[in-house]
Amino acid sequence: MTVHEAHTRVLVQGPEGQRSDIQVPVTRVALTNGDTFDRYSTEGPGSVPEQGLPPIRRPWILERADVEEYDGRAVELLDNGSRAVRRGAVHQPWPGRTGRPLRSVAGSRATQLHYARAGVVTPEMLFVATREGCEAELVRSEVAAGRAIIPANVNHPEAEPMIIGRRFLVKVNANIGNSAVTSGIDEEVDKLTWAVTWGADTVMDLSTGDDIHTTREWILRNSPVPIGTVPIYQALEKVDGEADRLTWEIFRDTVIEQCEQGVDYMTIHAGVLLRYVPLTAERVTGIVSRGGSIMAGWCLAHHQENFLYSHFDELCEIFARYDVSFSLGDGLRPGCTADANDEAQLSELRTLAELTARAWEHDVQVMVEGPGHVPLDLVERNVTLQQEWCHGAPFYTLGPLVTDIAPGYDHITSAIGAATIAMHGTAMLCYVTPKEHLGLPDRDDVKTGVITYKLSAHAADVAKGHPRAREWDDELSRARFEFRWHDQFALSLDPHTAQAFHDETLPAEASKTAHFCSMCGPKFCSMRISQDVRDRFAQDGMERKSREFIELGATVNVPQSPREEE
Amino acid sequence: MTVHEAHTRVLVQGPEGQRSDIQVPVTRVALTNGDTFDRYSTEGPGSVPEQGLPPIRRPWILERADVEEYDGRAVELLDNGSRAVRRGAVHQPWPGRTGRPLRSVAGSRATQLHYARAGVVTPEMLFVATREGCEAELVRSEVAAGRAIIPANVNHPEAEPMIIGRRFLVKVNANIGNSAVTSGIDEEVDKLTWAVTWGADTVMDLSTGDDIHTTREWILRNSPVPIGTVPIYQALEKVDGEADRLTWEIFRDTVIEQCEQGVDYMTIHAGVLLRYVPLTAERVTGIVSRGGSIMAGWCLAHHQENFLYSHFDELCEIFARYDVSFSLGDGLRPGCTADANDEAQLSELRTLAELTARAWEHDVQVMVEGPGHVPLDLVERNVTLQQEWCHGAPFYTLGPLVTDIAPGYDHITSAIGAATIAMHGTAMLCYVTPKEHLGLPDRDDVKTGVITYKLSAHAADVAKGHPRAREWDDELSRARFEFRWHDQFALSLDPHTAQAFHDETLPAEASKTAHFCSMCGPKFCSMRISQDVRDRFAQDGMERKSREFIELGATVNVPQSPREEE
Repeated sequence: MTVHEAHTRVLVQGPEGQRSDIQVPVTRVALTNGDTFDRYSTEGPGSVPEQGLPPIRRPWILERADVEEYDGRAVELLDNGSRAVRRGAVHQPWPGRTGRPLRSVAGSRATQLHYARAGVVTPEMLFVATREGCEAELVRSEVAAGRAIIPANVNHPEAEPMIIGRRFLVKVNANIGNSAVTSGIDEEVDKLTWAVTWGADTVMDLSTGDDIHTTREWILRNSPVPIGTVPIYQALEKVDGEADRLTWEIFRDTVIEQCEQGVDYMTIHAGVLLRYVPLTAERVTGIVSRGGSIMAGWCLAHHQENFLYSHFDELCEIFARYDVSFSLGDGLRPGCTADANDEAQLSELRTLAELTARAWEHDVQVMVEGPGHVPLDLVERNVTLQQEWCHGAPFYTLGPLVTDIAPGYDHITSAIGAATIAMHGTAMLCYVTPKEHLGLPDRDDVKTGVITYKLSAHAADVAKGHPRAREWDDELSRARFEFRWHDQFALSLDPHTAQAFHDETLPAEASKTAHFCSMCGPKFCSMRISQDVRDRFAQDGMERKSREFIELGATVNVPQSPREEE
Repeated sequence: MTVHEAHTRVLVQGPEGQRSDIQVPVTRVALTNGDTFDRYSTEGPGSVPEQGLPPIRRPWILERADVEEYDGRAVELLDNGSRAVRRGAVHQPWPGRTGRPLRSVAGSRATQLHYARAGVVTPEMLFVATREGCEAELVRSEVAAGRAIIPANVNHPEAEPMIIGRRFLVKVNANIGNSAVTSGIDEEVDKLTWAVTWGADTVMDLSTGDDIHTTREWILRNSPVPIGTVPIYQALEKVDGEADRLTWEIFRDTVIEQCEQGVDYMTIHAGVLLRYVPLTAERVTGIVSRGGSIMAGWCLAHHQENFLYSHFDELCEIFARYDVSFSLGDGLRPGCTADANDEAQLSELRTLAELTARAWEHDVQVMVEGPGHVPLDLVERNVTLQQEWCHGAPFYTLGPLVTDIAPGYDHITSAIGAATIAMHGTAMLCYVTPKEHLGLPDRDDVKTGVITYKLSAHAADVAKGHPRAREWDDELSRARFEFRWHDQFALSLDPHTAQAFHDETLPAEASKTAHFCSMCGPKFCSMRISQDVRDRFAQDGMERKSREFIELGATVNVPQSPREEE
């Protein structure tokens, strides 16, 4: 059986007695012993890029009767001399869509946090509960308390609902996006599909070049997972990269454009306050967040407070109408281990805590971003402080990298920090690829980054004792012990690589049931010997022997060495 | 400047006023700003395989006047019908050697522990102190207390002394060795050289096929680092793989053969006691150590106590004459996260603690091996218990892997556990390659395994606040912030990969000083913006501003958002 044959996408019906339109995808693995094992699936039903995915959430959104269609913003040149909003090759409306965006009717808030606080269990919450294998009430109450978010823009009905919070499975975000130097739209849509195939729970489109709008449109219409962005990048393109020319109005316009497209969460660097910028002056690597450095430059140039901070309530009002979640950016995160946990970083975190509370007043969902580069002994403190100061709002960290000396391997230096910080409560991990610090990730890097982060997230789930997490490990371990090689491959995070590595030295089909591998050869296979031991001393005999020993005070006749006999 | 030109092997003179023959190698990195940075070097002076390395320690060994040359064991068939000790193609003696092994004169103990306890600072200790950048007395006292070992067989004078202990830099071991299925001698010597090139601090030869003796001879004569083995593998070859036919005599003969060749430390599975074997019956993956399963099978077949345990004092007497260190094997280590920290594992650890104390009575150096597969939340407890029970003897762990679901990526699942356990006190980490569980590592896997473990070990050094550890990170971070790309590459753990990744998108030489990379492009490079910010608001101005803000109570004029002005 090939890996391809062993995996099937199956839709699992939501909780008994609940609505029948809750159909949650899993990857069902058929094992050679007749059992099956269901894995959490993010890859979606698969799409034809030109047609996009079916808008599965649209009925749920409409039945709440709190949204309206309206004429979206026109495609026009901005009148401040900046570049046009480029819609390029996007054909609007997409097949079966009106092309008109949704927003909540005036005065209402169409957010999952709003519903949760009102005691309503939405279809999205039922979907998530089935996906996580927990009670719907746990989902509702965690969202209501702000300890979890369900990023779900009313204009991104294609996404399968998922939840980010410390009581749930740790999630992984993959960044894609072109830069001015490389990469095109086709390549980015392909990276999206590739990332969710390997398990990315959300994807951020960090494009900075031309055609930002068009690239994003294609990504959104084809994405089964929530999409995040950093709107300041597009705003900066509109002023030709001259940060000093940025204004609140240009930024607001950009945000609404992205809300209408369906972006589910946005990184907003509202915590980079003017007075914090000088705190970075003596750092080894200054400010390393793109958004952070843009806003710091703006603040200093104008000697004015960050307009994202001063207009924060307005942003909340916009987000509440589309159910866009905040990802409060840590623009002053440390860019090297030397700068970790310094005054700049922690001052900003206190401001993010203040903004979290303000967003909640508007029923807007919030998560908080975290570092970056942090020595391993300081990692736990980052999440402990964030959870305490930000009232339990989900933490979303980039790694952190625990050393700076391994460019080319920063997916690994950061996976160490990521697993640790997730074990202590981080809810979502932003992946780091092998190209970090060196260049733009290609397709292979995206895969390596996602798999590395999935294993880190899962290690944290196991360490946290998440219900059902270790079942996966145990299923694979049993297959390993029983020399069910095909099952071992099929249960792996990356079945293709596992099988390819095995087959490099033992390609024959017969080796797939062999009781050894090339690592130790047949005579030295401990698992084979261990099974022989069991066979020779039948299991119940072993257990009886064990009890006997314990009853006898665990003594045994030890032949003395010759020297001791002297 | 290429990486090749930036790196030079330099010999650093030992402590002032001490002997002039202490010449410690470092890799000196020439930076483009005129500075240099010295990196710990393991690669040795380079050898012509047929001639071996110069025996730098021989004068130090001989001047102690406690060893004698003697006629080594003849190459002959054993008389119990088993296979010959195969010496194959080894030309003995090697150029410039007598071909006769050394051992301590009867009644004396030629171990570093013996000298340390007697208050003697050996040349080996001076070498190590220079290498680690610490006082020689720290080295002596840690060795004397059993908290550190200097593996240094009198018959392996080619090795550059190194130390394994929690007060020193965390070390990395690379396993090489052929199996019956694949790989030959040339390939193994090449893997040795390759492993030390990338930073392996010790190498274990785990060969199990034919020509074990010959393979090991070539490895030893060409190794600048201590070599470890698991002698039960060769003993098993001598009885044609039939574990039941193993005897203490065959094992002892094998051990002496390896002592005479120069093996520096040996894994001895003396803690796999008969009464512990039934404790593994209900495990998910039983016994996964090759040596452990061999001894467990033997114990059950004979219903006798493990002969390694019952003859342990004899082993100590042998080891004391050559200064071979024990690596007390954890034959009952968990082979999956489900089996971690169970009764079998911890019972064996208590026995290893007992054996540690017995070895110390013979002045024999000891380290203790540890798991394996352990959920991240249980990792710290493994090293805490080992340190407490084994009186601070160095811990030497395999990973541990923190999840079982990622075959093909187990260098990463284990690097997470490795960095964590090292931060909490593990002294040496045994690497895991991407081929773990799937096949025999090739050259690329060896490199990936070593680099992955070097970064884990270094992350632990940084977390432990080891003197000088973070200097390396900071040097690289400064190069990064100042866009000294060549220096960034040269300071990397793997300069070639770092440069290759960078050059994939920006190959031109001009890009090596460019103030951006392809990751963000020129407009969005936070480091460039951050530097511009510094330039525009000259550094002393920033600092003055910072003080002003603090004095003013860190307030700033915040323009209110329109809504708030209403």
